[in-house]
Formats: sequence, structure tokens, C-alpha cells
Amino acid sequence: MINNKVNFIGAEANYEESNIVIYGAPFDSTTSYRPGARFGSNAIRNESYGIETYSPYQDKDLLDLKIYDAGDIELCIGNSKKALASIQSIAEEIIAADKLPIMLGGEHLVSLAPIKAIVKKYPNIHIIHFDAHADLRMDYLGEQLSHACVIRRVHELVGDDQIHQFGIRSGEQSEFEFAKEHTNMHKFNLAEFKETIAKFTDEPIYFTLDLDILDPSIFSGTGTPEAGGISYLELQEAIILLKNLNIVGADIVELAPNLDPTGVSTAVACKILRELLLTIGGIK
Amino acid sequence: MINNKVNFIGAEANYEESNIVIYGAPFDSTTSYRPGARFGSNAIRNESYGIETYSPYQDKDLLDLKIYDAGDIELCIGNSKKALASIQSIAEEIIAADKLPIMLGGEHLVSLAPIKAIVKKYPNIHIIHFDAHADLRMDYLGEQLSHACVIRRVHELVGDDQIHQFGIRSGEQSEFEFAKEHTNMHKFNLAEFKETIAKFTDEPIYFTLDLDILDPSIFSGTGTPEAGGISYLELQEAIILLKNLNIVGADIVELAPNLDPTGVSTAVACKILRELLLTIGGIK
Amino acid sequence: MINNKVNFIGAEANYEESNIVIYGAPFDSTTSYRPGARFGSNAIRNESYGIETYSPYQDKDLLDLKIYDAGDIELCIGNSKKALASIQSIAEEIIAADKLPIMLGGEHLVSLAPIKAIVKKYPNIHIIHFDAHADLRMDYLGEQLSHACVIRRVHELVGDDQIHQFGIRSGEQSEFEFAKEHTNMHKFNLAEFKETIAKFTDEPIYFTLDLDILDPSIFSGTGTPEAGGISYLELQEAIILLKNLNIVGADIVELAPNLDPTGVSTAVACKILRELLLTIGGIK
Amino acid sequence: MINNKVNFIGAEANYEESNIVIYGAPFDSTTSYRPGARFGSNAIRNESYGIETYSPYQDKDLLDLKIYDAGDIELCIGNSKKALASIQSIAEEIIAADKLPIMLGGEHLVSLAPIKAIVKKYPNIHIIHFDAHADLRMDYLGEQLSHACVIRRVHELVGDDQIHQFGIRSGEQSEFEFAKEHTNMHKFNLAEFKETIAKFTDEPIYFTLDLDILDPSIFSGTGTPEAGGISYLELQEAIILLKNLNIVGADIVELAPNLDPTGVSTAVACKILRELLLTIGGIK
Amino acid sequence: MINNKVNFIGAEANYEESNIVIYGAPFDSTTSYRPGARFGSNAIRNESYGIETYSPYQDKDLLDLKIYDAGDIELCIGNSKKALASIQSIAEEIIAADKLPIMLGGEHLVSLAPIKAIVKKYPNIHIIHFDAHADLRMDYLGEQLSHACVIRRVHELVGDDQIHQFGIRSGEQSEFEFAKEHTNMHKFNLAEFKETIAKFTDEPIYFTLDLDILDPSIFSGTGTPEAGGISYLELQEAIILLKNLNIVGADIVELAPNLDPTGVSTAVACKILRELLLTIGGIK
Amino acid sequence: MINNKVNFIGAEANYEESNIVIYGAPFDSTTSYRPGARFGSNAIRNESYGIETYSPYQDKDLLDLKIYDAGDIELCIGNSKKALASIQSIAEEIIAADKLPIMLGGEHLVSLAPIKAIVKKYPNIHIIHFDAHADLRMDYLGEQLSHACVIRRVHELVGDDQIHQFGIRSGEQSEFEFAKEHTNMHKFNLAEFKETIAKFTDEPIYFTLDLDILDPSIFSGTGTPEAGGISYLELQEAIILLKNLNIVGADIVELAPNLDPTGVSTAVACKILRELLLTIGGIK
Repeated sequence: MINNKVNFIGAEANYEESNIVIYGAPFDSTTSYRPGARFGSNAIRNESYGIETYSPYQDKDLLDLKIYDAGDIELCIGNSKKALASIQSIAEEIIAADKLPIMLGGEHLVSLAPIKAIVKKYPNIHIIHFDAHADLRMDYLGEQLSHACVIRRVHELVGDDQIHQFGIRSGEQSEFEFAKEHTNMHKFNLAEFKETIAKFTDEPIYFTLDLDILDPSIFSGTGTPEAGGISYLELQEAIILLKNLNIVGADIVELAPNLDPTGVSTAVACKILRELLLTIGGIK
Repeated sequence: MINNKVNFIGAEANYEESNIVIYGAPFDSTTSYRPGARFGSNAIRNESYGIETYSPYQDKDLLDLKIYDAGDIELCIGNSKKALASIQSIAEEIIAADKLPIMLGGEHLVSLAPIKAIVKKYPNIHIIHFDAHADLRMDYLGEQLSHACVIRRVHELVGDDQIHQFGIRSGEQSEFEFAKEHTNMHKFNLAEFKETIAKFTDEPIYFTLDLDILDPSIFSGTGTPEAGGISYLELQEAIILLKNLNIVGADIVELAPNLDPTGVSTAVACKILRELLLTIGGIK
Repeated sequence: MINNKVNFIGAEANYEESNIVIYGAPFDSTTSYRPGARFGSNAIRNESYGIETYSPYQDKDLLDLKIYDAGDIELCIGNSKKALASIQSIAEEIIAADKLPIMLGGEHLVSLAPIKAIVKKYPNIHIIHFDAHADLRMDYLGEQLSHACVIRRVHELVGDDQIHQFGIRSGEQSEFEFAKEHTNMHKFNLAEFKETIAKFTDEPIYFTLDLDILDPSIFSGTGTPEAGGISYLELQEAIILLKNLNIVGADIVELAPNLDPTGVSTAVACKILRELLLTIGGIK
Repeated sequence: MINNKVNFIGAEANYEESNIVIYGAPFDSTTSYRPGARFGSNAIRNESYGIETYSPYQDKDLLDLKIYDAGDIELCIGNSKKALASIQSIAEEIIAADKLPIMLGGEHLVSLAPIKAIVKKYPNIHIIHFDAHADLRMDYLGEQLSHACVIRRVHELVGDDQIHQFGIRSGEQSEFEFAKEHTNMHKFNLAEFKETIAKFTDEPIYFTLDLDILDPSIFSGTGTPEAGGISYLELQEAIILLKNLNIVGADIVELAPNLDPTGVSTAVACKILRELLLTIGGIK
Repeated sequence: MINNKVNFIGAEANYEESNIVIYGAPFDSTTSYRPGARFGSNAIRNESYGIETYSPYQDKDLLDLKIYDAGDIELCIGNSKKALASIQSIAEEIIAADKLPIMLGGEHLVSLAPIKAIVKKYPNIHIIHFDAHADLRMDYLGEQLSHACVIRRVHELVGDDQIHQFGIRSGEQSEFEFAKEHTNMHKFNLAEFKETIAKFTDEPIYFTLDLDILDPSIFSGTGTPEAGGISYLELQEAIILLKNLNIVGADIVELAPNLDPTGVSTAVACKILRELLLTIGGIK
Repeated sequence: MINNKVNFIGAEANYEESNIVIYGAPFDSTTSYRPGARFGSNAIRNESYGIETYSPYQDKDLLDLKIYDAGDIELCIGNSKKALASIQSIAEEIIAADKLPIMLGGEHLVSLAPIKAIVKKYPNIHIIHFDAHADLRMDYLGEQLSHACVIRRVHELVGDDQIHQFGIRSGEQSEFEFAKEHTNMHKFNLAEFKETIAKFTDEPIYFTLDLDILDPSIFSGTGTPEAGGISYLELQEAIILLKNLNIVGADIVELAPNLDPTGVSTAVACKILRELLLTIGGIK
């Protein structure tokens, strides 16, 4: 009898044989403006059949990798603390099994969970952060666990000079001031990306990709679209550059598929995930 | 110079002269399925200009009442406790001023706040609860402050036999069993509404209206549409029957205008709010 | 070579042989709330291929009639006077040719044009008016040529007791008062329709159908949806009752197809037009 | 590690232990008007988490049944013959295993496949057919394998007086004439349903449910919506009446979720499937 | 008690203290193709909370300015003359108070009103006109007050060589010929913008921005989208260049938010308005 | 009496006088992912009134050409063979009349029909193929007549080195390998277009334009959007370069207007068709 489990396209390995594990964190309770990121991970999985497993850009095929798609974690909507704990526990299990964890959000707050897990193993982890928003607020309307504060919380974990922000074009004035002191912020685009990562050798790196770094022309399906972003090809090129780095974990967040009825945003997320998997797939 | 403050149509009184106060509680962080109720109160206000202030059903006009529209409370999305506290504080202020509070949600959890406020003044309050869902769970994925548990929380405040549920057609088996013991549940429709309220004389009553009691044919803009509901005219007729009761507070919740691109759901909510205001408007 | 002119389904006669002429009046410049009725007539034509030419309700087929579909008139958007003049001219041409004119709106103001044309021929014309709204204002923000005033303008043409209104459930208080003096208004539904039309013998009658008489559950694609309307089958039944009357002109207005992405409203309009054509098709 | 296979809610059995098997046939290549039924089965599965497993109407719970959800068959879009062969093969496997097959469409043509499979086992099968459309054309634009012809094809398999049609309100004149001779057609609604099925004792019955029998007010998400249909509660009541019949197979077809952005149509299909499963779930 | 008046974000001054006044002109009755610009100004106000008050591009914050948001003018839909008169009257009041008027459309015809007002004070005013369309027709279907004719009407007020058009890529042949004689038209893009404005010293300038100058990839929510437009960053850069000019009035028109369900177009308009305010905010 | 046949804007010639014939092939039965291309040709025709007949890019006007718009062919949905035969027959009739055939799809498979027709007249025809996808599969799920295989089928007709592919950025690995041997594939963009066509003198050329070569930011309305495509202006520039070639037939395919609710994709297709007509309009 058929058993048509829906995986991300090409993610056909079982857990044991896999060296990459995709898992979904369908949570968006702190999204302050327009919700829907909770539907992101499932949409990526379901709509991935509109793309191919083969990338002509990298001349590689997902079918040559060993990827397990664990599906979505059942999360306690409305309680950020519990939700983050559930996610962290899964991330820790994947890391303990010496597999590469790739999380699909969900809003950006969920990134805090795998980063907490990974910091235990790699205390000196570097964070590469792609985003339109600084996400550096101390709190948002009094709440510290908010998508608008996630990189501030990460900073509390990893300290100064470990966070490398790119594409940032929105925030409060105070966030930009905080960045001057504590993070390496490269505003507006990826102009300085290549030279920045050229400095890395084998430091462990976590890559957190808020898809709203993209211009809303190509990625409208996100809670807080911010005009003036980078193009798809700029993002793809940057991702392919990651291949020489020691990526030990990654996430792709803030796709809200309900906000883009054309389906293009989801298709973009699928293609970016494919390119990311093909880039870092040979590395544990 | 013009000063075009957007009120609900006909709600043109200032706070001091008003005897009814409308206020919005734009919160939906615990919505487990499809979010958007956070946009409900603002949509009702903005779209109310598609209806008239006059009701041919009641032959009454909003312009003859003294209603103040306070706008939306700024709430801490993602933190239910703080959000409920903010709402309760506003409700208490209105009650203290001896005005009738009418809250616009938001998801159903927000009803807990004004009920807490009103119970202080009327410990023996009766609750008339219109809904498709029982909302009687002890918790939802471990969380007690959830839209799926709100009437259970209310029961903890008011005790047995004070809650009168109508229209309920969805829930877990255990919720229906709980209702048999602790609430007066009238399943599926309003068949028993008239005779039920005929028993009331001047008991204080809070009316909480989850608009998904309506059939999704006329009200699709809600997080969890449930087929088999009542018609618009059945709901309107029931609301007009409230005119002989001692309503001391009310709310209308679970409009998610983003889920109904036709705008009909919002138009329905506006009309229901008009009829409710006209029904209870003479009563403090 | 093919020549695929798009007609309403079954309207395959040429002008000369036809005894019914359908023409579109794509105008909605006075729509005060949500525009889109300008797209109504063309949508009906294009989407009519989703229904059949045969009606099992009447056991009749459009293919047995001689109907010409003239397409849409090019109208001066933004200038009501000029637009009405253009429409009236076409209506007069059809009437002069002794054919039955059926206009597709457009907003309700456009009905004024064919009624002006038809009053010249039949000064004692009766108007059967189906609508959710009274449309009896003297003016709307100072403007007398407005969709909200169209029946008031018609009253100026035909005088007291010639206008028979059904389904009306919205308006200003003063409109309902005007109706008491000057029109035969039957509020809310069609309960009194059958007995009303039983009094007619061979008086000439113009039938103007604002589709928002329907409940928004089945007809959401209209500028000002008003809950509490009649069902599709009630409307269809009433239309079939017209078969014994001397209908000398008719229109169907206020479909705004852009407001109903499901397409149901357009499909409803197509079916209603079919039933209307089959009812009055044998009568010149 | 989590393994979040998406089943229809409550369909948690494995194939071996199950006595009911749900399978999807995502095919709509012959849909002549508006496509999208290919997305039906997957949408039902994904959105089923918006309803509960418990039915207060039947006081039964899906968790008490043994249902296996096989997922969707991979079908050759664009080639009806091959697609039908693939479906038939799965249906035969389920029947051979003595399990009850429940197919989710897809367009109505797909019903031909399981009926072919089931006729082999039950040559005297009765067909209960709920639909807005007669589906009795000999061919559609020259093609015999079309959704508009499926019941005609079924008639070729089962012969006269075995097909019981309900709700039919659209078709060509010739289809209604064919029905007079060869099927038991009950036009427009379910008025004669109860008395019709009262005549059945233990004859094997296949139930094919085209959801467009419902009124478009509650079910707009279908290729060819046809106003004047039955209400949700009428359909649900009829389905519960099936409990005394010997249902040996069933299908639910013609949900096109892309055509109803409110999601209500999918929610309706989920609830109907739940009620159907609960009705026939105790019967092999 | 709360009093949640909805302003454009950061426009928190009262009228008296303000030196910039934002006012909305929700009119689109002459829109010939797809209406909706009437909803533009209100959408900008409501959705502005998705952006920040601080601009990292200019390193300035709206909170440091004194801006009053007057809301929308109530306009007579369907009567261009009356509507324009109402708008002009407000513009004159703002100018008389020596404040900078910033109008939010509405369709482009509304720009005629403030320009009429401003020409009285500054007879030698220069007009900087950003648009995809020339808007230079003598009339449109006989009507001179049309969005397609607005710059022709402005030319009648200000004369030759005072109008500087940029981005124009659509029009009738005769409009381009008119431009050769009477305006300074820079086709297709902003390539010549910098050198053009370098010639200005302290001439009074009115800036009218039809947002459809933007490419539809980033701005789809407009009545007549025209491919081949400029990018968001090109527009923003040009606006920031205005800082050295003597801008005495401005408008932003032709956002039709209903035509872009993703919300991106509205977000773009909000951000452009913020940058414009920050650019010209220090100048009376 | 009016007779408002809907043509593509400016296509006002009758068949006899025309030298260009536009015809629609509304077929998408083999679309494997998201259908809707069947609505493409009719949408282009209806929405063309949003653009002008004059192109400022080429300084030419459609009104100076002799174009006949034949409308859409009625095709047998669900049967690719029959549909292709119907299309081929029309194409042959146009070619026999010595007119230039311009087909509007429909999905890409329909291009096979006019190419078959044109190969009879020009056996050494060259194919210029713009697309995001290689379309070079031998079969798709066993089916050889599929949109994913159309250029492979064309290769069987025209042989090696006659097909010039541009913009290709998606396909299976084997398709890219096939291209290395048998076609001239220029991946990703049009960088090599100018030099490639410079080699042509008067060879007969068929131009097949799958609009998904465009980036989804500007063209989201297509079944399988593929990020990383070319811009509108790049496509337009390439089309204008065709003016020196001997184009003997062309098509524009894969607009699925239902997938882009903003209408931008259809507007883009209209403008591209205008530019194509103006480019090749002087050539028979």
C-alpha cells in the first residue's frame, strides 16, 4: 500500500542514515504585526514539489545527499517559553546524534532555541544573521521573548563581536546604536559579505536567515515586508559562498505563506533551502 | 481643520457624556489554528461606514444613544497574562464610571478580562455564551490561558449553573461531559434560547458572543469555521430578545477579517454590534 | 477562421432576428463604499459558460429564444450625466426596435437611464424593485445622481404608488418614512410578493433587480453587502412568477465580481439572468 | 526523533490493523471550467486539524475507529486513462484486503476507477450519487472520459435502475431525458432520500459524493458552483442515515480548495468526511 | 480612558504646533480601469505601524518633527468638481496657516486641488511630476476632469517649462508630442533627475508623486500597473535628493491597496512617506 | 446597435485585410503543478485595455498595423492529442493564408501544434526558446505529451542545433546533459542573446516565449514560478532586437492569471505582446 509521507523534495533518507535533519518550528505567537509564519515550514514541505532536486547553479542534486525531514514539532501556541523549550530539546537531540540541524520557522524568535542548544557544544559560535530588521530591542512592549528581540537575546548568549548582521534596514535608533558597540552590523545589503567571511577559517558558525532580507518584490509573504532589500540572486550567491565555512546549524524563518497568495514566496523559500542544503550538505 | 477620528459609526459621544463604552482588545496569540482575530476590532470600526445608524428591525437609531468608542488597547502580543491584565484594567475603569462596557475582540480568551472585572461587582453574574465551540478544556497543550479554555476559566470564577451556552457544536468528548455537570449547555442552535431567558428577571448578565456561532456561509472570517451554525437572522432575533434582560457587560469576539476577503464577515459583525447597541443601549 | 465573440451563453441571435437585447452598462462612479460593479456585465458574459442553457426548474432552454448580446457600452467614467445619456440612447434604440431591453450593471444608478427611456413609451409604468437598500435619499453628500438616490429619482419620474419595493432592510430613517407616503415598500423579504403581483393584469412593468437583495452568504460580491437577505431559491421562485406579467424592460445590477474571489456571486448572477430570460423570453 | 506524517485527523492506524483506508486521487485534468480539485485530498488532510475527532451529532469519536490514511496516489496529470488505471489498482488492493475504501478526489471522473474495482466484487452494486450536476453526457467535446460523463460511464458498468441520483439541478436537456429512462433521478434536493433508502436492506452500495450538491453559500470551493443547493445540515443528516446501509465503498470529490480563500469549503469537506467515517466505520 | 486615534506613525503633533500637515483625499471616481485609490490614504495611516519612525538611510526620526495628521476629507464620490473644491479648501487653509501640506490620494486627479491652491501663493511654481503615465490628454472620453488629464490641467495653470516629468513610459502618441512642446519630460526613469534639480536654487516646487512610477514588481497595488518602472531604492534616493529644494507642497497618489493582497504596496507607500517627511520636514 | 467584440487592444482589422493573426489556445491539462494557463489568452484580451496602443520604446502604434484577433479556439480539455490537432489546424489555415500566426497559451505544450504546422513550410526552421525550464524531458510520469517535454518533442521535429534556449534555470540533471548534445542552451539569462542572433541573416525563425523566463517578482502568475529570472526590461529589449530577424511565427505561453490576484502578470503579458507585435508587425 502507498504511504505518501510528505517530505521536503529529495529529503528521502531515514533518520539513522541521515547527516542533515530538517525540522519545522511552526510558531508565531509574538509576531506583532501580521501573523502567519506558523504556516511556513509546512508550506515549504508541501510546495517543494514545484522545484527540482537538481541545481544548475551548483551542478549538484539533493538526491545525492542524506537528508531526513522530521516534520513539524507540535508547539504550545501562546506560550513562548514552553515552545522554545520543545524546540531546543529537538535541536539538542539532533546535535547529540552528530547531525546537522536545519530549522524551518516560524517567526524569528524560534531561532533562539537551536542557538541555545548549539552554544552548549560550541561556546565560541559565530552567528551570521541575514535580516531586514535589527532584532536588537531589549524588550517589545515589556516582553523580552519577542521576534523583535531575538538577536539581543542571542547576544546575551554569545557576547560581543560574535554576531555578523547583514541586510539590516529597519529598527529603532537605539538598536543601531547597540549594534555599533556589540555586533558587526553591515547595513542594507551584502556588499561586505564576501570579505567578511573570507576571514573565517574553521570557526563554528550558525546561519540564521530571516527571509525578509529579500526585497518584498520577490518575497512578499512575510509579516513585516521592508522595501529596499536584496535580490534573490544576491541571496543565492551569498549562500553558495557558505560552502567553505564550518556551518554547524542553520535556520530559515519568517515565511508567512498566507500573506502571498501567488505562492512565489514559498517557492523562493523552497529554492533557497535547496541551495543551502546543497551548499552545506557535505559537511557534518 | 478636519480631525477625522475613526469611530464605530454613530459612536460620537465623548467619554464623559457616554453611557456605553466600546473598546477593542486586538489580541490573538493563543489562536491555535488560523490567526487574525487581532485585526477584528479595528476592521469593525473602519468598515462600519458600510452600514447605517438606523435599524429597520428595531426602528431605532444609534444617533439617539450616547456611545463612546475608546479605540483599541495596545496589548503585549505573545504574553497572555500581561495582555489580560491590561484589558481588565480598562474594563474596571469603565465599570467604575458606571458605564456599560462592550469589548470587541480579538480571540475569545480576551473575554476572561472583562468577566474578571465584572465578577468583582456582580459576584452572582450569569454568563450567556454564544459559540460553536465549548471552550471548556482544562488546558490546551499544557496551557490554561487559551481560547479553547476560556469558558472553563470563567467557570472557575462563577461556579456551576451560572453559564448558559448556546450553539455549541464542536469540542472534545470530555468538554461535553463537563458541560453536563457544570454548565447549562444547549447544543447546536438557539431553539431553547427564548424559554431559557424567560426565566431571568433582573439578574446581572454578561453576554459573550463568539461570532463563529454563525454558520460559515455568512461568517467565514474566523479562525475555526464550523459548518452547521445558525443563520444571521436567528442571531439577530436572539440579540433583540436581550432587551428585557439586565445586561451589565458584553463582548463580540473571533472576527478574523483577513480570512474573509469578501468583507462580508466584517459587515456582519458591524450589523450585529449595531443591533446589540440598540438593544441594550437604554440600560446602564 | 474562427471568430470567437464572447456572448452570454445561448445569446446567439443577431440583432435583427432577436426579440431580447442584453446590453452592459459598466459604470460605478457614484459607488460610495466599495467599487467594482463596473466589472459586472463583462464578468457575467465571460463566466456564463459555467452554467447550462437549459433550466430544469422551468424545463426551458435559452437556445430556443432569440437573444442578442450587444456587449458593453463605452461609458464616461466619472461623469454620471454623460454616462446616463449614453445608456438611455441605447435603451431607446432597443425600445424603438420593439425589442425587450435587459441591462446588466454597473451600479444601481444606471437603472435610471432605461427607466427614463421606457417612461416615454409607458408613462404609467410600474416598477418592481428588489433591493436590500431603499435607495430613496434626496441626495448623497449633496449629489442627486447617486446609487443611493436612484429610486427617489425614479419616483420623480413615475409618481406615487407606482414603485413596489421588496427585500429592503437598510436605509436612513427618513427613507423609510418617505416610503410610507410614496412607494409600496415590503420590508426584509418577499413574503408579500406573490399576492402583490396577483393584482397586476397587463400593466407595463419594469423590473429592476439589485442583486444585494440576496443574502451575502450566497452573494458576497457586491459593494454593500447586507446580512439578513433572501435565499437564492426565493429569488429564483419570484422571478419565475414574473412570467404572467407584462415585463417591458428589466435590469440586473450591483454585481461587483472583484469583491468575491470565489466566483460564486458571478455564477449566481448568470443563473438568475438565465431564469429571467427564460421567464420573460416569450414576451416582447 | 519526531516523525510528523500528516494524516487525516484521527486516522492513526497502520495499514494492517485498519478496516477503513482513505486514499487521495489528486487528478483534475478533464475539469472543463475552473481547475483545482487536484488539491482537494491534500487540503483535507492538512486542514483536518481545525476540527475535532469527536462528533456531538453522533456522539462518536474517530479515535475509536481503525483508519489508515494512505496519502495521495502519484497520478499522470494529462492522461485520464493512465490515471484511472493507477487509482483502480489501489482500490482493488484495498478491496482485496477486505478493507473499506474511501477515496478523496480530485474531480468526479476519478470515481470511475474505484467503481470499476468494486463492480468486479459486487456486480449488482447500487450507486448513491449526490451531485448538483447530472454527469450523464455521452461525451464532452468528443471526449468520453470527462467529469461531465462519469455517471454515464458508471451506467455502462451497472445498468439501469442501479443509480440513485440526488440534488441534481444542472445539465443539458438530454441528460435529464436519459435519467428518466435509465436512472432514479431525484432533482434539486434530498426530499425523497429517506424513503428511497428505506427500501434497501443489505444490497451493496457505493456512495459517491460530489460536494457541489451543497449550496455554494457553504461550499464555494468547487469548479462549477451551482446556486440552489442543499444546506450543510441536510447533507450531514443524509450521511448519518447511511448507517443502516451496506456501504462497500465511497468517495468525496470536487473540493477545489484554491477557489475558496476563506478555507470554509475545506473545513466543510473535513467535517463531512468525519461524519461519513463515523457513520460507516463499524462496517467492513 | 484610552483614545486611540489612528495617525500616520509618528505624526503625533496637534494642528497648532505642527509645521507639516498630512491630509487624505479618498477619491477615485474618474479611475477608468481598476478602482481602489480611494482606500489609499486610510490604508497608509492604518498600516504605518509596520514600519519604524526612524530611518537608517537618513539617520533621522519622525518623532523629532512636528506633524499633524488631519485624517481623510469626506468627499462627494461621483462628482469631481465638488470633490476638488473640498480638497482645495483644506489645502488653502493649511497654506494660509503657513504649514506644509502633504496630501495622500486618491487617484491622481486630486492633485489638481492643492496645486490650484498653491499657485495662488506661488504663481511661478515648478512641478516635479513622478509617474508612469504622461497624464497629458486634453480629455478622456470627453471628460476634462480625469486622472488621465491632470497634468494637462496643471499645465493650463502653470504654463510651459514649469512641469518636470520623470519616469513616463505610457501614454498616447499625442501626449508625448505635447510634452515635447510644453513640459520637460524625462522618459522611462530618473537618469536625468539629479542634474535637473541641480539647476534649482530656491524656486518654490510642488512635488506630485504617482506611485506607479515604481515597477509593479514592488508596487502592484495601483489601478494601471506599467512594467518597466524604477526600483524602490531609486525612488527613495531621488526623494532624499529633494532635501536641498524649496518644496512648498507635495502629494503621494494612486495607491490602491485593495489590488495588492500582500500588503507590500501599502508598506512601500508608508516608507516613502516617511522618507519624504524626513527629507522636507525641516522646511516650512 | 453596438457590437462590442473584445479584441486585444488595437487588433481591429478583419481577417481578410490582416497580415498578423492572434489566436488563443486555452489548454492546460498537462500542467503538473498549479493549473490556470487555460485562462491566459482570454485574460490578455480582456485586460489589454489597461495599456496603450502606442509604445514610447519603439515609437510605434498598434493602430498602424493590420492585426486580426481570432479569439480562443474551443479545445477538448483533458485530451492533449485532440487539442493539439485542433490548434495545428488553425495554425495551418493562417500560414496558408500567408499571415503571421501569433498564438496565446495556454500551457507550453500547445506550442507543439503551430511548430508542427510551420515545420511543414519551413523544414529548416530555427526555434528561439525563452523559458525558465528546459522542457527537455523524454516523458513526465510516462506521458510524452506534457508541458515538461515540449522542447524535446520539438527537437524530434527539427533536429540538432536548431533550438536556441535562453534563460533556463530549472530542470533535471539529464535535461541539461541532453541540451549539451542537442540544443544551444544559454543558461540563466540573456547575456548571450545579442551575439547569438547576430549570426542569423534570413533564416526562418519561430519564437516561443514561456513567460516564466521572467523573474517571479514581476511575473508571479504562472504555474511554476522560478526565482532568479530576467527583468521585464531585459525581456523587452530582447524582443525589440528580433526586428531584424525573419520571424515566421510566435507564441506567448504560461500566463496563469488566476495565480496573480494583483493583475500585474496579465498586464506584463499584454505589454510584451504589444512590443512583439510592433517589432514583427511589418514582416509577413
